[in-house]
Amino acid sequence: MGMTMTQKILAAAAGLSEVKAGQLIEADLSLVLGNDITSPVAIHEMERFDKKGVFDKDKIALVLDHFVPNKDIKSAEHCKCVREFAGCNEITNFFDVGEMGIEHALLPEKGLVVAGDVVIGADSHTCTYGALGAFSTGVGSTDMAAGMATGKAWFKVPSAIKFVLTGKPAEYVTGKDVILHIIGMIGVDGALYQSMEFTGDGISYLSMDDRLCIANMAIEAGGKNGIFPVDEKTIAYMKEHSTKEYKVYEADEDAEYTATYTIDLSSLKPTVSFPHLPENTHTIDEVGDIAIDQVVIGSCTNGRIEDLRAAAEILKGRKVKKGLRCIVIPATQAIYLQAIEEGLVQTFIQAGAVVSTPTCGPCLGGYMGILAAHERCVSTTNRNFVGRMGDVTSEVYLASPYVAAASAVTGKISGPKDVL
Amino acid sequence: MGMTMTQKILAAAAGLSEVKAGQLIEADLSLVLGNDITSPVAIHEMERFDKKGVFDKDKIALVLDHFVPNKDIKSAEHCKCVREFAGCNEITNFFDVGEMGIEHALLPEKGLVVAGDVVIGADSHTCTYGALGAFSTGVGSTDMAAGMATGKAWFKVPSAIKFVLTGKPAEYVTGKDVILHIIGMIGVDGALYQSMEFTGDGISYLSMDDRLCIANMAIEAGGKNGIFPVDEKTIAYMKEHSTKEYKVYEADEDAEYTATYTIDLSSLKPTVSFPHLPENTHTIDEVGDIAIDQVVIGSCTNGRIEDLRAAAEILKGRKVKKGLRCIVIPATQAIYLQAIEEGLVQTFIQAGAVVSTPTCGPCLGGYMGILAAHERCVSTTNRNFVGRMGDVTSEVYLASPYVAAASAVTGKISGPKDVL
Repeated sequence: MGMTMTQKILAAAAGLSEVKAGQLIEADLSLVLGNDITSPVAIHEMERFDKKGVFDKDKIALVLDHFVPNKDIKSAEHCKCVREFAGCNEITNFFDVGEMGIEHALLPEKGLVVAGDVVIGADSHTCTYGALGAFSTGVGSTDMAAGMATGKAWFKVPSAIKFVLTGKPAEYVTGKDVILHIIGMIGVDGALYQSMEFTGDGISYLSMDDRLCIANMAIEAGGKNGIFPVDEKTIAYMKEHSTKEYKVYEADEDAEYTATYTIDLSSLKPTVSFPHLPENTHTIDEVGDIAIDQVVIGSCTNGRIEDLRAAAEILKGRKVKKGLRCIVIPATQAIYLQAIEEGLVQTFIQAGAVVSTPTCGPCLGGYMGILAAHERCVSTTNRNFVGRMGDVTSEVYLASPYVAAASAVTGKISGPKDVL
Repeated sequence: MGMTMTQKILAAAAGLSEVKAGQLIEADLSLVLGNDITSPVAIHEMERFDKKGVFDKDKIALVLDHFVPNKDIKSAEHCKCVREFAGCNEITNFFDVGEMGIEHALLPEKGLVVAGDVVIGADSHTCTYGALGAFSTGVGSTDMAAGMATGKAWFKVPSAIKFVLTGKPAEYVTGKDVILHIIGMIGVDGALYQSMEFTGDGISYLSMDDRLCIANMAIEAGGKNGIFPVDEKTIAYMKEHSTKEYKVYEADEDAEYTATYTIDLSSLKPTVSFPHLPENTHTIDEVGDIAIDQVVIGSCTNGRIEDLRAAAEILKGRKVKKGLRCIVIPATQAIYLQAIEEGLVQTFIQAGAVVSTPTCGPCLGGYMGILAAHERCVSTTNRNFVGRMGDVTSEVYLASPYVAAASAVTGKISGPKDVL
């Protein structure tokens, strides 16, 4: 029996010629990631087992992104803890406030993850890097601590579901719509502890930003990871961003999958996840009349340059609806700068949108756009759980940047064709 | 006995030919201002005395600026309260998130205050508009409520101190240095309940942004208001920004002052207020070696375009010191846009600074740059009280944008000449 793409990467990292679903292995880690929320816990864990040094100062990434610039004294203390730890251990890839960006947008941009890597991160959306043909997954802070100390982690080898993507998406249908459609189809536990392996000729129509968005939300279907084959676009991206050596793994032809789904991308429509689960999807033509109070465009899911271009295409020459707040957050400083160079930030400000420094802020109800009771938000982020962005009676609708921007113009959930 | 400039404005607004210091008068208000912190209290007060309507929907300005985009559920509820009140009362000058800016930068920019106006605002730095030759002062939320309901307010006519400014400031000496010098000279209660009336040929060398900064901090010397004579620069500013009719008042030659200070602007040096009072001033050459953790450039005091130009002049081609956070906050959306057009925002991002959407945020310890225990910040804001920006053991040093930017580069309190 052959191996899936994920299994091949894990086998190599464990020094084994073969692994099977369900097998427990110990794998060498290419990178261990933590942020300002999860790293302090990991650092205290390391101190508890009296392990002060790290396994490799070049293979740890610490990113201050969730509550920065510090939203309160507690977050200031957390950042201080990480800053001091990074200083003592001479962590090469410590990204302080101002050098930063949102971790899952930053690491690929900085070339810290490439195909064939095995990455753990103390953040559930660490699965993002599967877009590059890497195995990456979220872990708790204790596992992060062990990873920083030893450079290794235990995994139960996941089984896999195959998603065969065919055809070319229509205009205004993005990676976000693809992954929302899939989660709507299989449910939020549809891929529980499994790999979501994407394949098929439709992938060639998906940009790297699309793929990063799709892999990012694998966890929202319960997936252990999401992973894409390495093609010309992947290689071009890695060459542009990284000097690291990459290794391309392919699934065996006789790899075993617990299920196979074929999705015709050309049949998809802009899709919206209604409260309070990502699986609660509706296509834009089924949405009806839903007035909203706020729009958020950004996050590790949709804060990349293509996302901002999409939003600006809609907002150019238009105004945010009176009484509605539209908050745009470039995911990294580099994206922010590029968005200025392309005139996108200017478009947002002229439209009456807020343009914030990179931060996770509103996505997790941190700050920078919290919802009052009964308020509704269309957001390009990844989770719409009860109270995720504020009051427990508030509602979050997940959508693409096109839909979010269009909704900002009309004041109700709308597709791009409603305003263009 | 003649009247001061302030007394003349108040007499006219009270419909009296003459007023004297200490007299109680009732004056007509040109504008009543509130923000997202103070307006909800005023709105509830209005409801308490069953007064729902406002005296004039065009003469009230409601600005959401302190904790927006909403930092938490409570601030979201406050903003919602103001938004609903503004909607019900059809308030012309309601500035929601994204249309906004920091109130005291926004109102002059939008042309809502001109010479001769009488303005109250439920925010202590309402005294800013004295730069335009208006009488403006901070009040509590209850007075704001009464002002919104009746269009009138009671005042005790203030006595005045005269500040004769002579000579031309040296390079890198700004309005901020002038006002810090004055507060250092007379103390934080040096002008308690008095007008600070600025006069002298040195004023011609001060830009409108300088004057707005100086008037803004009159309250930090205890002043009821700070006020500048109307000259060509004032008139040019008003013509550019406003269509309102203005009226120029001048102090009588025999006006009474409780004290007169003459300040030779050419003798001033860049000045820093040490913790924990604005009066605790030192010139830059006396500062010594003080390592810092954060720099904030912005606020109603120093977030205007000239402030950003000054900071960018220092940061251009340089980097923020490793381990230090530098947070730059344009005071309004218009300033943000202009700063992009001039390449200033790009300079800040390239230097490794955070550039935030307009907000009061860090100045009052709200969010967007709160200090951990024992951290030190050089800030262009207006108050350095104990715990003002975070932990009670943290320290705030007040300075100009030149000093703040230079300190961001060196990592210790520095003058522009230390880096240029």
